[in-house]
Amino acid sequence: MTAPTPDTAAPAPSKLAMVPFVSVADMMRIVNEAGIPETILAIAERIEADFRRWPEFDKVARVPSHSREGVIELMPTSDGEHYGFKYVNGHPANMARGFQTVTAFGVLARVDTGYPVMVTEMTVLTALRTAATSVMAAKYLAPKDSRTMAMIGNGAQCEFQALGFQHGLGIETVRLYDVDPAATEKAARNLAGSGLEVVRCASPEEAVEGADVITTCTADKRQATILSDNMVGAGVHLNAIGGDCPGKTELHRDILLRSSIFVEYPPQTRVEGEIQQLGDDHPVTELWRVIAGEAEGRTAASQITLFDSVGFATEDFSALRHIHGEMRRTGHFAELDLLADPDDPRDLFGMVRRAAEG
Amino acid sequence: MTAPTPDTAAPAPSKLAMVPFVSVADMMRIVNEAGIPETILAIAERIEADFRRWPEFDKVARVPSHSREGVIELMPTSDGEHYGFKYVNGHPANMARGFQTVTAFGVLARVDTGYPVMVTEMTVLTALRTAATSVMAAKYLAPKDSRTMAMIGNGAQCEFQALGFQHGLGIETVRLYDVDPAATEKAARNLAGSGLEVVRCASPEEAVEGADVITTCTADKRQATILSDNMVGAGVHLNAIGGDCPGKTELHRDILLRSSIFVEYPPQTRVEGEIQQLGDDHPVTELWRVIAGEAEGRTAASQITLFDSVGFATEDFSALRHIHGEMRRTGHFAELDLLADPDDPRDLFGMVRRAAEG
Repeated sequence: MTAPTPDTAAPAPSKLAMVPFVSVADMMRIVNEAGIPETILAIAERIEADFRRWPEFDKVARVPSHSREGVIELMPTSDGEHYGFKYVNGHPANMARGFQTVTAFGVLARVDTGYPVMVTEMTVLTALRTAATSVMAAKYLAPKDSRTMAMIGNGAQCEFQALGFQHGLGIETVRLYDVDPAATEKAARNLAGSGLEVVRCASPEEAVEGADVITTCTADKRQATILSDNMVGAGVHLNAIGGDCPGKTELHRDILLRSSIFVEYPPQTRVEGEIQQLGDDHPVTELWRVIAGEAEGRTAASQITLFDSVGFATEDFSALRHIHGEMRRTGHFAELDLLADPDDPRDLFGMVRRAAEG
Repeated sequence: MTAPTPDTAAPAPSKLAMVPFVSVADMMRIVNEAGIPETILAIAERIEADFRRWPEFDKVARVPSHSREGVIELMPTSDGEHYGFKYVNGHPANMARGFQTVTAFGVLARVDTGYPVMVTEMTVLTALRTAATSVMAAKYLAPKDSRTMAMIGNGAQCEFQALGFQHGLGIETVRLYDVDPAATEKAARNLAGSGLEVVRCASPEEAVEGADVITTCTADKRQATILSDNMVGAGVHLNAIGGDCPGKTELHRDILLRSSIFVEYPPQTRVEGEIQQLGDDHPVTELWRVIAGEAEGRTAASQITLFDSVGFATEDFSALRHIHGEMRRTGHFAELDLLADPDDPRDLFGMVRRAAEG
């Protein structure tokens, strides 16, 4: 609290009024100083630790507002000590207009006071945490000694996935395919020098040849069949991250029927994930149970495992907690005058009026 | 969009990356330049207009995260063109620790792109919109020619209510009571020179003497009986704004049984409002129907009307829209580098990496 201010002076914002803000530029500084793969793996560790204590979290399916053009969602959660939420949009038509398909920002707050402790960009952070979640899940679900990953959809998420799987799972070769060859070129160019062998493919069928892991990451807002049944052989791990909205799926239903399906939070995934194509009673395994040792992950070499990933609030929470630590360590943040903090907490009116007299 | 940037340069944030930010200081500038009562009435007009087109809004009960100390809530809504949400906490124990009981911030966004167009403080704005909502409801529900208002609870909301009712309803006398006499003194001091006759009262019973309108605005997070049945005479309008949480009420149940009850959004008010004390089928009238001419408000001089107000997302939306206009008109805002905006929307990775080379 600031010291009492004479009635005639406009008080400067007190420390309580200020909330640290991580801009896009600050986020890029934080991530580049630590390294992109290193950041993905550090977030993956946080996500894994938080999945292990899953029952401690206050969980709710994200709150969507749908429109013809896309969706805006709020994703809150809390572990009883911290509260976090993300605002994220998904607008497939944005790209053609020069906007991002997905942009996001988020807030971390203290539960005991309700005061925010960080506001941050989350477009970059969402890309990192999505890759981190995929890698973390694949550690439990992908075939042993996976070396080759097919990547169908080479948009904004692609390179983060590739580097995450390279450094977290030992992937050596990525086989890229996108309906737009320019996207594949962009990804291949960005991955040059990464140590990954990059193969540009002319079709999804070519991309999945010899793949241990198939990552689908497309952005169409419609029922699409990026993978048909005959393209998925025994023993593969499917990392399906593009189907994340009612009416938006990537896999043919028959693939789901042959797969062991792992999900984040069933009440959300039943509505948004690939499994919206199945009955509400179709058996799925909650990923956190596998991580906590309460359920089995991959049990046979011939098994098809499917991580039907739509993104869940705890993953953003884990990422927010990581960045909050990094922000404090590096000092890469600004201060926002976001919270009204009158000298007397009851005297909000007096604070407003004194500001006019200052 | 910015022009393409050579691979080796760290691109400066483009215009699309920047989101206008209204700080607490900016908000106070905007409000003081227009005037506090004038701002309350301008927001009340917006709220009334938006209530009149209620069916156009995407509505959902706010999403709470409860803890021992309080609650953190997200309140989203959309009219199909704009999307708005508010983050707000309610921590009754905060005041004793020098924190605000209620702090808030919010965002207005475009539905067609999902991009935010304003981030703003909302602690001050929530106080204004709460008073605006109360005044707007009272225009339809309070006795004709109301001149005296009792105000029980003289905290952060008190003076905004008093000025709103003075300028919007013609209230000439406010009768103040608070369990803490220092709060009453603070409110009386702030209202000196407002033109209102201010009466300090030693008990709730004294405060309600001769009142046409009784406003209850206390912050205890528990079942409380601020008003007992014998204190409420025929013909009064009750403006109950402090009961806004499960387990937090202000009025004795018997008062509710004698009142015509008006609410904002029943699915939220049934859980949070005074009517949580009643059965789920107890008849209530949605306020928007009164405003749209589909239901009757006050029909008799002897009728007790109760606005069981818990605060709803559309009211924040209306307030956000008003401030967005004022922000553009006055230029009182800063720019936040909140959204990642790569030259090629798919090349988020390249943008992050080029930032390291800049």
